[in-house]
Amino acid sequence: MFLISFMKAHPVEPGQHYVGLLVAGAQANTKEVVDLTLAAPELPHDMLSLLALGDAAFPIMEKALQTNQGRIPLNTIRLLAPIPAPPRNIFCVGKNYPEHMKEVQSIVASANDTQGDAPSTPIIFTKAPSTVIGPMEPIPAWLDETDSVDYEGELAVIIGKHGRGITREYAMQHVYGYTILNDVTSRRIQKRHQQWFLGKSLDGFCPMGPCLVTRDEINNVGELRVQTRINNELRQDDYVREMIFDIPVLIKTLSKGMTLQCGDIIATGTPAGVGMGFKPPKFLKTGDRISITIEPIGTLENPVE
Amino acid sequence: MFLISFMKAHPVEPGQHYVGLLVAGAQANTKEVVDLTLAAPELPHDMLSLLALGDAAFPIMEKALQTNQGRIPLNTIRLLAPIPAPPRNIFCVGKNYPEHMKEVQSIVASANDTQGDAPSTPIIFTKAPSTVIGPMEPIPAWLDETDSVDYEGELAVIIGKHGRGITREYAMQHVYGYTILNDVTSRRIQKRHQQWFLGKSLDGFCPMGPCLVTRDEINNVGELRVQTRINNELRQDDYVREMIFDIPVLIKTLSKGMTLQCGDIIATGTPAGVGMGFKPPKFLKTGDRISITIEPIGTLENPVE
Repeated sequence: MFLISFMKAHPVEPGQHYVGLLVAGAQANTKEVVDLTLAAPELPHDMLSLLALGDAAFPIMEKALQTNQGRIPLNTIRLLAPIPAPPRNIFCVGKNYPEHMKEVQSIVASANDTQGDAPSTPIIFTKAPSTVIGPMEPIPAWLDETDSVDYEGELAVIIGKHGRGITREYAMQHVYGYTILNDVTSRRIQKRHQQWFLGKSLDGFCPMGPCLVTRDEINNVGELRVQTRINNELRQDDYVREMIFDIPVLIKTLSKGMTLQCGDIIATGTPAGVGMGFKPPKFLKTGDRISITIEPIGTLENPVE
Repeated sequence: MFLISFMKAHPVEPGQHYVGLLVAGAQANTKEVVDLTLAAPELPHDMLSLLALGDAAFPIMEKALQTNQGRIPLNTIRLLAPIPAPPRNIFCVGKNYPEHMKEVQSIVASANDTQGDAPSTPIIFTKAPSTVIGPMEPIPAWLDETDSVDYEGELAVIIGKHGRGITREYAMQHVYGYTILNDVTSRRIQKRHQQWFLGKSLDGFCPMGPCLVTRDEINNVGELRVQTRINNELRQDDYVREMIFDIPVLIKTLSKGMTLQCGDIIATGTPAGVGMGFKPPKFLKTGDRISITIEPIGTLENPVE
């Protein structure tokens, strides 16, 4: 299933959030929305509460799909990030694709620091929840006075079942599904403050969406292909199977001493082709459009402001 | 005022949280609690909602102090962290006292990495909200399989008023008050994963309390003295005025591109005297008792489990 959080063009209460399902429309190549508030009013109306229901929500959503109730056109809604207000920071993984690691290495080697070394264990940092924006929302690059805003197209894992000390073997049972995430970064702020958090946490620096695809829809997560385009120029193109630390290892690492919680978001790292990898670097500028495609999740597109 | 979050020994609803004020008891050198749910029932019953009321809550709390209503003995409650469940990660500042910076430098210089360099701008990282525990709650050091758990006694700033682009001049107006925080750290996990987040975010690795002292109670925050004792041995002892980056600079730095929110917690850094500074290092072990004193906030004490 393809879950979405959305607002309506003409809501009863302004700012009200809804959850729904993205489905094929009546016309070929179109999509429409099943508004779960109408089609399955017994379900909660926000994504975090829906995720917390776990498997219990699935038969109800399946039934809602089979009826024709609650179908509304895609153009009457505004898509939000699947989890518009995460209850804690987003977990991110640094240097998790070999080719990206090499491009970082080639830049920082000259700077005589250790950031280019190959990680022997996953590098984990966080982004503030206030970074999250939805599809088509502008990225406020102007907030970075150092003019070094970069993109990082990534597959994000959404945790469904809480746990600590999760083994590799059982890790995938804790995954609710997947979405696309752009780990937007100010490279100079990232570097200046040594720890990466600040350069990763400017307001609006985490576009997410367009939907949350449940785990059962993806047969082999390794076969997912991450492609990032800037103004239609392909910049990043790699397969999830290339990750140095795969999803079970990331879940095992994170949950070793810290309880993972339902609704947690893990950005799994970005492939080669980020703007700072070019000579001279190609940082984002006002008017650029970034689109990140990972099928079958779809495309996450955002303009730069 | 000295605000607390607490649970009652015999609650109407199990697990129910309350807010109150810590006041002088009828007997000399004793303290008791004004239960704000009884003395000022019009106020919200959780700390985050109370902070969100801002100045509007002050006359109501003052009035509650003047009546004799809602006074309950300290031994009928269990203190919680003033903000028991932060809505996002705790902001922490690395190497913010000169003597601590030197002790870190002397250790890592031999390891040939850059962690010992003096920061030219504040180093900011985060701790997961799931780390937060209250006074006297045991720190689960056993969660760290690398046996390298260390303490860091710190003054924490609680943000009252949200804002972005806050100047040094107006920074203090965004401070609601102060508490004590122990930035418990697994040194080997901190080092192993390069970014510090994981080594700082094991469950229960952030004791906080005993109370939230409102800003008006502290004339000069620089004169606050931070003292950490392990089993009554004084290990850390320094003044807040020694901080490399003071509170206005930290608020300015954090809020430059990221909106600070009411209820945000900033751990301002730890003085010299952490366990890893000794040769050989003095890591925490089961049965140790850590007490951090910053008057007039009080003492935050926790046993190690």
